[in-house]
Amino acid sequence: MPNVADLGLVPQPARVSLGEGRIRLSDASEVLRRIDTALPAEGYVLDVGVGGVRLRAGGTAGLFYGEQTLLQLLPPERLSSPTLARALARGPVDLPVVRIEDEPAYPWRGFMLDVARHFFPVGFILRMIDQLAAHKLNVLHLHLTDDQGWRIPIPGYPRLTEVGGWRAGTVIGFDSPHGDSGHDDHVHDERPHGGAYTRADLERIVAYAAERHIRVLPEVDFPGHVGAAIAAYPELGNGAMPDVRTRWGISQHILNLEDSTLRFVQAVLDEVMDIFPGAYVHGGGDEVPKREWRESAAVQRRRIELGIADEEELQGWFTAQIDRMIRTRGRRLVAWDEVVTGGAPKDTLVMAWRTSGYGVNAALQGYDVVMSPSEYVYLDHRQSTNPDEPVTFPDSPLPLARVFEFEPVPEELRAAYGTPGCGRVLGGQVHLWSEYVPNERHAEYMTFPRLCAFAEAVWRAPLAPGGYRDFPDFHRRVSSHMARLRAAGMSYREFDTSSAFLELEQVPPERRPLLTGGR
Amino acid sequence: MPNVADLGLVPQPARVSLGEGRIRLSDASEVLRRIDTALPAEGYVLDVGVGGVRLRAGGTAGLFYGEQTLLQLLPPERLSSPTLARALARGPVDLPVVRIEDEPAYPWRGFMLDVARHFFPVGFILRMIDQLAAHKLNVLHLHLTDDQGWRIPIPGYPRLTEVGGWRAGTVIGFDSPHGDSGHDDHVHDERPHGGAYTRADLERIVAYAAERHIRVLPEVDFPGHVGAAIAAYPELGNGAMPDVRTRWGISQHILNLEDSTLRFVQAVLDEVMDIFPGAYVHGGGDEVPKREWRESAAVQRRRIELGIADEEELQGWFTAQIDRMIRTRGRRLVAWDEVVTGGAPKDTLVMAWRTSGYGVNAALQGYDVVMSPSEYVYLDHRQSTNPDEPVTFPDSPLPLARVFEFEPVPEELRAAYGTPGCGRVLGGQVHLWSEYVPNERHAEYMTFPRLCAFAEAVWRAPLAPGGYRDFPDFHRRVSSHMARLRAAGMSYREFDTSSAFLELEQVPPERRPLLTGGR
Repeated sequence: MPNVADLGLVPQPARVSLGEGRIRLSDASEVLRRIDTALPAEGYVLDVGVGGVRLRAGGTAGLFYGEQTLLQLLPPERLSSPTLARALARGPVDLPVVRIEDEPAYPWRGFMLDVARHFFPVGFILRMIDQLAAHKLNVLHLHLTDDQGWRIPIPGYPRLTEVGGWRAGTVIGFDSPHGDSGHDDHVHDERPHGGAYTRADLERIVAYAAERHIRVLPEVDFPGHVGAAIAAYPELGNGAMPDVRTRWGISQHILNLEDSTLRFVQAVLDEVMDIFPGAYVHGGGDEVPKREWRESAAVQRRRIELGIADEEELQGWFTAQIDRMIRTRGRRLVAWDEVVTGGAPKDTLVMAWRTSGYGVNAALQGYDVVMSPSEYVYLDHRQSTNPDEPVTFPDSPLPLARVFEFEPVPEELRAAYGTPGCGRVLGGQVHLWSEYVPNERHAEYMTFPRLCAFAEAVWRAPLAPGGYRDFPDFHRRVSSHMARLRAAGMSYREFDTSSAFLELEQVPPERRPLLTGGR
Repeated sequence: MPNVADLGLVPQPARVSLGEGRIRLSDASEVLRRIDTALPAEGYVLDVGVGGVRLRAGGTAGLFYGEQTLLQLLPPERLSSPTLARALARGPVDLPVVRIEDEPAYPWRGFMLDVARHFFPVGFILRMIDQLAAHKLNVLHLHLTDDQGWRIPIPGYPRLTEVGGWRAGTVIGFDSPHGDSGHDDHVHDERPHGGAYTRADLERIVAYAAERHIRVLPEVDFPGHVGAAIAAYPELGNGAMPDVRTRWGISQHILNLEDSTLRFVQAVLDEVMDIFPGAYVHGGGDEVPKREWRESAAVQRRRIELGIADEEELQGWFTAQIDRMIRTRGRRLVAWDEVVTGGAPKDTLVMAWRTSGYGVNAALQGYDVVMSPSEYVYLDHRQSTNPDEPVTFPDSPLPLARVFEFEPVPEELRAAYGTPGCGRVLGGQVHLWSEYVPNERHAEYMTFPRLCAFAEAVWRAPLAPGGYRDFPDFHRRVSSHMARLRAAGMSYREFDTSSAFLELEQVPPERRPLLTGGR
């Protein structure tokens, strides 16, 4: 008789009771669906039994998640189609008798794709949306602009994509993320890289995601990470005439504070809010080198005029300008955790990326927080210390088991707010920065199976005091789950012995699974 | 002392004399370049000797090809940059003393990429252009429209890309290319696939190619293979209301012959000629199922009005309309070999794809011909009978050795025209149809190293009577050459034992290289 782990459900539902026998399902219309407002909006109860297949949920999102779980009860090869109707079109299936009661622990379960460092085609994004849905995630954050590329057309500023959408080449191999040498003697590949979405493309993404209960969070990064915009329109900067950046790391060139530049920012945000209907808009705010502001007479005049003490506070003022533009249209600002230093408005949603400590700090100051700490959820870090791993940051490997350990609410906050209350932490986000991710297949390799571990981390309840996370159980489930990724055509990373050992360094010896033989 | 094969030059130059010793080259400016109009326009003489590095050529294309050969004399890892200046920026190199006299045998050396069945991003096309240039090819043929997708925006017809640029899904696995069952009960993956270039994208491709002496041949396929256009504008068809096709094979839906449809064709060709400045425009003409024309009262009225006997001749009339539209602007029509049957104008350039026999037939009828016979140059066929090869057509593997055997001028024509005269054969083209090529990495795998063999086949002189092609020599050179592909970041297909055996079935036993050990 099978046990629950044999079902290979990912993320693991809150409660699963496995019965005996199997029930035939021939058509999606045989599934009895009902909204039951007593359940949470994203929660559901799935009953496969003698009475057939019944699905109750608190809302349409819950019905959708119930169907995602039901799909995982099908033979994995059926998952080459992401909907039950089409998966069953190939013939009836026998489902195990089971009752599943489920609901997510966190309302914000996000995935960020950096389409600025490398451009990814719309078709790829739609395929990823299918996978986010299959893993019950509900936010797709698109990082649309950066020093190395600008991907969203803005009316009145055609050069943003025509010039800012293309760079002359890409640095070869690993490139230090720290600062800028001023002169540019690195070797790049001389292969132009670029691209931009059309408004219709972005609307297609938004609509496709919405049908799958995923909101798209657009990010335009200001006032730093704007090298591509300044390459297109040097008048936005502080006197420099840069090209679209061909190496990684942070450009020193940031926005000036002229009224015309603020009008540009307004135009960008207006177009963003026209295309993306969601409640949130991400305004960036990370890694803003202040040298140009210190050295610019115009910026210093503005600072004094505004009665502002220093450049950190000046970023706070800038954040407040963006916040006002967004708030006027009834939206809410999301920004990277750096904005806390400058004193961002208190209803800014802070995305904590540097370490979870910055998220704790923001939450304790009264900000709502989404946790995306690099030490747990940065998928651009390599998956093992195996020398065959592709080029990436040279240190800090992020093995599967580490992602699995991710707790959106760290110990310090649990102490402050009590368990299971999440306090101000809305959830978590996993990030795929794409400096070292040049194409779709590579993106899939970096994303899977680590996304599976992340999906589990933001779905499951916070760790009870004295509890532990059962990685071997997850490892076993995700091993089965890979057949679903394979059916969906995803180029996930296979387990290998060296990486498995690294993953297992995180696991107490007595709980390590056998690595060879069997499953 | 090294021999010529050790240089691993691909394509092999016409004459190579290897001397002794090595010469240091530190900077691209040290290469003495000179135009010598006594040489053929694409020919060059490269001298690396005590006098330094000297390059003479018949024209700028010859200088460019001389530089491509010079780049192959560098350590392969330098080829991560495609230009000499940048490759030398990493430090001086010691070149072997060598004299190379070289010129291509055929003026048309093409590569076709099908961007209709799967959309490929601009950045990928630019990277492929670099590789075409490195292999001394000079035509990039883009198959821009088909039943499964329309990729070029046409003013006045926005739905061509908005609707025709996207399909609801893609059939899973192998799908018979033969005909249409009428009803559509196949299983597709429900993942929308699509995309379209902007005019600026296409202009970028044209300019980038031109700098590398590559002309871009645009193809818009009429009057069949227009399912995506009819999905966007059903009034172009004969009453059917199809969706953009989600399976492979040929749609039964073709253009009607209304004046408004001919105006549409004119608008498409006008935009194509505005964007693509080359002398040739490809108008398709392949695989036109005539059923709709036979069954349409309107088409039959038109046929009788025109005094035309049957539907084959009707296609000839249609081809003549396209020809006129193109000729008016001083361009020349290229079409698939089917148009010969309908009696296409005699200065149509015929692209022979079905077998080389159709090319022979066209040439003997007085057409200029580009040879691209499926049995030698269809890169969508699998590379070995190894069951691990990705899904493709189930029969007709096309191993490397088979591509290497390709002779643009077949025996029959050599008999008719004499050797080495090529008669009416301008050269050859290799085709990457993309039904089973879903992404960039996959496209690279299907293309390399077979493109290397093709490049050699269209560069080298026609086979002398009683001569033979030395595949083991090529195999050895291409083995070294792979390090260049690797440096350039191409996902070429590695040799493996099973495929090597298959490749060697083409080679007489006494000439087979050792497969294991050494090089």
